[in-house]
Amino acid sequence: MEITLTSGKRIEIKPGTSILESLKNAGIYLTSSCGGKGTCGKCKIIIKSGQAVSKSKIKLSHEEVDKGYTLACRTFPSEDVLIDIPKESMLVVEGKVVTGKSKDLQTLLNSTGAKIDPLTERIVLQLPPPTLDDNISDLERLRRELFSKGMGCLRVPFRFMPDLAKTMRKENWEITLCTIHTEDCEEIIRITPGKKKTPQYGVAVDIGTTTIVVFLIDLINGELVDIASTYNSQIRFGDDVITRIVHATEHNKLKELNDVVVTDINVLLSIIRKNHRINIDSIDCVVITGNTTMTHLFLGLDPSAIREEPYIPTANAFPLSYAGELGVKVNPNIPVYAFPCIASYVGGDIVSGVLATQLHKKQELCMFIDIGTNGEIVLGNAEWLVAAACSAGPCFEGSGIKHGMRATDGAIEGVKIHPETLKLELKIIGDNVKPTGICGSGMIDAIAEMFLTGIIDQKGKLQKDVSSNVRKGEGGLEFVVYSGDGMELVLAESDIENIIRAKAAIYAGFSTLLKEVGYTFDDIQKIYIAGGFGKFLDIEKAIMIGMLPELPKEKFEYKGNTSVTGAYLCLLSRKLRAEAEEIAKKMTYIELSVSHSFMNEYVSGLFIPHTNIDAFPSVKKLMEK
Amino acid sequence: MEITLTSGKRIEIKPGTSILESLKNAGIYLTSSCGGKGTCGKCKIIIKSGQAVSKSKIKLSHEEVDKGYTLACRTFPSEDVLIDIPKESMLVVEGKVVTGKSKDLQTLLNSTGAKIDPLTERIVLQLPPPTLDDNISDLERLRRELFSKGMGCLRVPFRFMPDLAKTMRKENWEITLCTIHTEDCEEIIRITPGKKKTPQYGVAVDIGTTTIVVFLIDLINGELVDIASTYNSQIRFGDDVITRIVHATEHNKLKELNDVVVTDINVLLSIIRKNHRINIDSIDCVVITGNTTMTHLFLGLDPSAIREEPYIPTANAFPLSYAGELGVKVNPNIPVYAFPCIASYVGGDIVSGVLATQLHKKQELCMFIDIGTNGEIVLGNAEWLVAAACSAGPCFEGSGIKHGMRATDGAIEGVKIHPETLKLELKIIGDNVKPTGICGSGMIDAIAEMFLTGIIDQKGKLQKDVSSNVRKGEGGLEFVVYSGDGMELVLAESDIENIIRAKAAIYAGFSTLLKEVGYTFDDIQKIYIAGGFGKFLDIEKAIMIGMLPELPKEKFEYKGNTSVTGAYLCLLSRKLRAEAEEIAKKMTYIELSVSHSFMNEYVSGLFIPHTNIDAFPSVKKLMEK
Repeated sequence: MEITLTSGKRIEIKPGTSILESLKNAGIYLTSSCGGKGTCGKCKIIIKSGQAVSKSKIKLSHEEVDKGYTLACRTFPSEDVLIDIPKESMLVVEGKVVTGKSKDLQTLLNSTGAKIDPLTERIVLQLPPPTLDDNISDLERLRRELFSKGMGCLRVPFRFMPDLAKTMRKENWEITLCTIHTEDCEEIIRITPGKKKTPQYGVAVDIGTTTIVVFLIDLINGELVDIASTYNSQIRFGDDVITRIVHATEHNKLKELNDVVVTDINVLLSIIRKNHRINIDSIDCVVITGNTTMTHLFLGLDPSAIREEPYIPTANAFPLSYAGELGVKVNPNIPVYAFPCIASYVGGDIVSGVLATQLHKKQELCMFIDIGTNGEIVLGNAEWLVAAACSAGPCFEGSGIKHGMRATDGAIEGVKIHPETLKLELKIIGDNVKPTGICGSGMIDAIAEMFLTGIIDQKGKLQKDVSSNVRKGEGGLEFVVYSGDGMELVLAESDIENIIRAKAAIYAGFSTLLKEVGYTFDDIQKIYIAGGFGKFLDIEKAIMIGMLPELPKEKFEYKGNTSVTGAYLCLLSRKLRAEAEEIAKKMTYIELSVSHSFMNEYVSGLFIPHTNIDAFPSVKKLMEK
Repeated sequence: MEITLTSGKRIEIKPGTSILESLKNAGIYLTSSCGGKGTCGKCKIIIKSGQAVSKSKIKLSHEEVDKGYTLACRTFPSEDVLIDIPKESMLVVEGKVVTGKSKDLQTLLNSTGAKIDPLTERIVLQLPPPTLDDNISDLERLRRELFSKGMGCLRVPFRFMPDLAKTMRKENWEITLCTIHTEDCEEIIRITPGKKKTPQYGVAVDIGTTTIVVFLIDLINGELVDIASTYNSQIRFGDDVITRIVHATEHNKLKELNDVVVTDINVLLSIIRKNHRINIDSIDCVVITGNTTMTHLFLGLDPSAIREEPYIPTANAFPLSYAGELGVKVNPNIPVYAFPCIASYVGGDIVSGVLATQLHKKQELCMFIDIGTNGEIVLGNAEWLVAAACSAGPCFEGSGIKHGMRATDGAIEGVKIHPETLKLELKIIGDNVKPTGICGSGMIDAIAEMFLTGIIDQKGKLQKDVSSNVRKGEGGLEFVVYSGDGMELVLAESDIENIIRAKAAIYAGFSTLLKEVGYTFDDIQKIYIAGGFGKFLDIEKAIMIGMLPELPKEKFEYKGNTSVTGAYLCLLSRKLRAEAEEIAKKMTYIELSVSHSFMNEYVSGLFIPHTNIDAFPSVKKLMEK
């Protein structure tokens, strides 16, 4: 059987294989946040002709079904089919839009005072050919040359020995070494004949519980070549780290969880590589950051003890591994550097975030919060750092919200509701793109605006008679955020509850951590906010719903995905890598899950903005109006 | 088709496969010094019934052919056959005979002042289980415990990380680590749950150009458990290192040379392991010594530059490798330590030999000579060491001599010829064993006695009318050393020429090296002789033929196989391993092949005892008689 795309491309298909799987096998990747379970509705395609069995129509409107829309992950052709893939279903890389981001990153790198000095170095050597009077072995010749250039220690893994003699002689004793500093020594990761200084790329990967982001970086000039991102396919085994650990432990499926995340990364990497025609041997290193569980699952380490008291990871600082050991599709000898973690629930993504915000160099007291699937908070300055975790859930990344999505093209990232007409004004990511879902910043906006206009009450319950956009849906009341072209995007009451729980957990984390170390909100000079909100987060709205404390707006700084930014910095500077390792050593973890104070704060936060309304004077004033 | 042994054992055989190969596939190993080329005549078997095509009868007497003898390597059954394998054709381990040798080795180890402190260490740790107050990661817990015990640096290769959490928890936080010191750090090579202190074995391997010797050693008490040895199967690609390098280079057959030597070692190891029922996981480390070419071929390193001026090996000091990388059949993570070499023609076997003789600690000037396939000479003391090579050829190990063999059961190791009756008196290795060949010490004896009795002249030419044992053979005159039971062992004139060339090269090496550094024979206080001569070497006879210089007999000490002895010492003592590395650093290589003096000396040595008869006053006196 065959699938034909409207573009004319033909794909062989095996009976019993879903269209999603068949497309994937042919190198065509659709977006999917449920990992192919048929529940997220993101892999929509249109069957133009031919018969196919569709096993689920969840998330499809009647109109869509009538038009031939179906979910690729749950659709199995019974004969040759012709299909059309709508643009919004395609997993794409960001391509040309990265130029601005690239400049920002290069500016950030400069501002740290670090020079470009990549994690892996290429050294070109022109060795003196041996003579009867200078007849030391090839390996000694190599070492002598490097030591004369000031290298203190060189480790040559045995695997480079069999070809050493040929490689050194091939281009008249000129060779290029690629090395990485590890365990107090420079270790060889590649030896090539001749001068091979360029091109030289590195890969930075942020493995989020919900989202995976891959940066391809030019190691010569620090340019961000491209970005690719996708949902973490592990989602099909559960939305949060705990359910994934349970799956790995109880179902003995660590290997499976490991495979899917490695495959996700390989897919993103191959898309970028193809787009930019980058040879696999031009990639010298990979840096990954992620929370402790994601790091364990990616590295194939047993995560079971993370879940059970006293919550112990296999490691926080990871021995260097190589792409070949992990199945990452670059040269198998390429090192994969995993950011050090702090504890079971504060991972490498947070160390990376601190590096990206340079919190560890500030004189004044600062806070850093990363709102991903978990919320993690760091408090401190150049003197000390403490960190804590508050399980916020994945809703701000679009998971667990009916029409939630990541902050990519098509996401509603801003919502305004006119105070009188109650008409909605939406801000969509992308140029001339129809909305396909709501991302985290859009949710915060929507809740704040709905609260201000009385569409929801302090508990987040939808009011029936305020707005005509409130209607009864399949699972209860829902608020229609967008309707057009047969597409309807809603926030259901259950979605709103999820968002309120998430914001309550974040605020409770803030206040409990401060209390634990004897400070108040007023002591904080700066709050850095990270997360997958895209380019945009309205601080005032976040304060209004009680997610952020009420402090002067200028104290807040929205930083976007700091995890991948830190990985970028580490990839380009050995000095910054050393700083990351210092941050990890310095940071003290405080366990909030055993704190009564945290639970009390959380329960108090299940209102908009908070049970203690006096902590939010401006919101109180607005409410009084 | 099937082969049935007289023992009743049945073996499946594929058409086109030789009996030797089929037996090998079934784990039955025959001796063979030509590597299955059909030229050494050592793999004799008797076909009792059934038809088989025999492609070569070289080395078989008419009587043997009549009795059904055939060469297993060149015989291909055409139907089911019943065969008998004579005892002398079986490759066997030394078994019970090693007790005395074991005591000698243990005494030697004690005499060096080193304690038993094996190359790889097993460390049992009882770790404190984690609590909420002591919630560091598993890896940190491990490091903390080791550092508290005084370990300065611990390297944990990534491959041990995936199972770390399970291993540490399996036996209530008790684990046994196995580590090796490498590159200024202890590196983990195994982690097992619980206390696994014993049994603990090590393997020492001497890879000679002609002979491979494997020692299995108990690392707890230093006992030599058993010895196994065989011809190096690479012999089928050439007798000496040069022809093997040519084969590796010109025929692009490095992989093949590498495979056969690794297989030889695996065969010997598996025989010993089975005999002593030793579990593969009880073996913690492997130490190998060999000349530079053998070490390269074993490690799979390109040897081509060794052969061509300016004679450059890939390495002299080798990065640590692991059994899995090399195909050695023990646990794949077990380290394989290769003795450091000095230069292209002075290898790790010589460093090992110096360690075994403790030459590097002597106050007086000493000499060490290892007579294997090459002859290598070391001169020096605790202050300095110089080394040189003189290509002696493999004849003293039985190769290139019609009825030559290694010094194992059945070898004629001593020959006396009655000065009047000219009757021969032979000394055979083994209890009640019929002679099957002549080993190195037997050859030296025979040449000396034949010279003394006038059976050969000064040039080594056989005299027709002196002894009735001299007769015309296929290739010229030959001397019958043994005749009985249809078996005849001879020394042909071409054999005698080979032996004279070998002894000339050795003596030339001695005298040239001494001249190069400004000493004479009289300055030497001790000469240590190593080589595969078995337990026995008659120094007087060796002087008589002009192989050794005429010095007082007490200055000579025959040390046997010092290469494997040094490997034994290194395996049992980290201190001695460090000494071996010091020896390698300290030793200066002197290239004799470019010396005119060496060539002159060599040509002068092609007489018995030497052109300069005055250098051998006692021989001169005997000749005058």
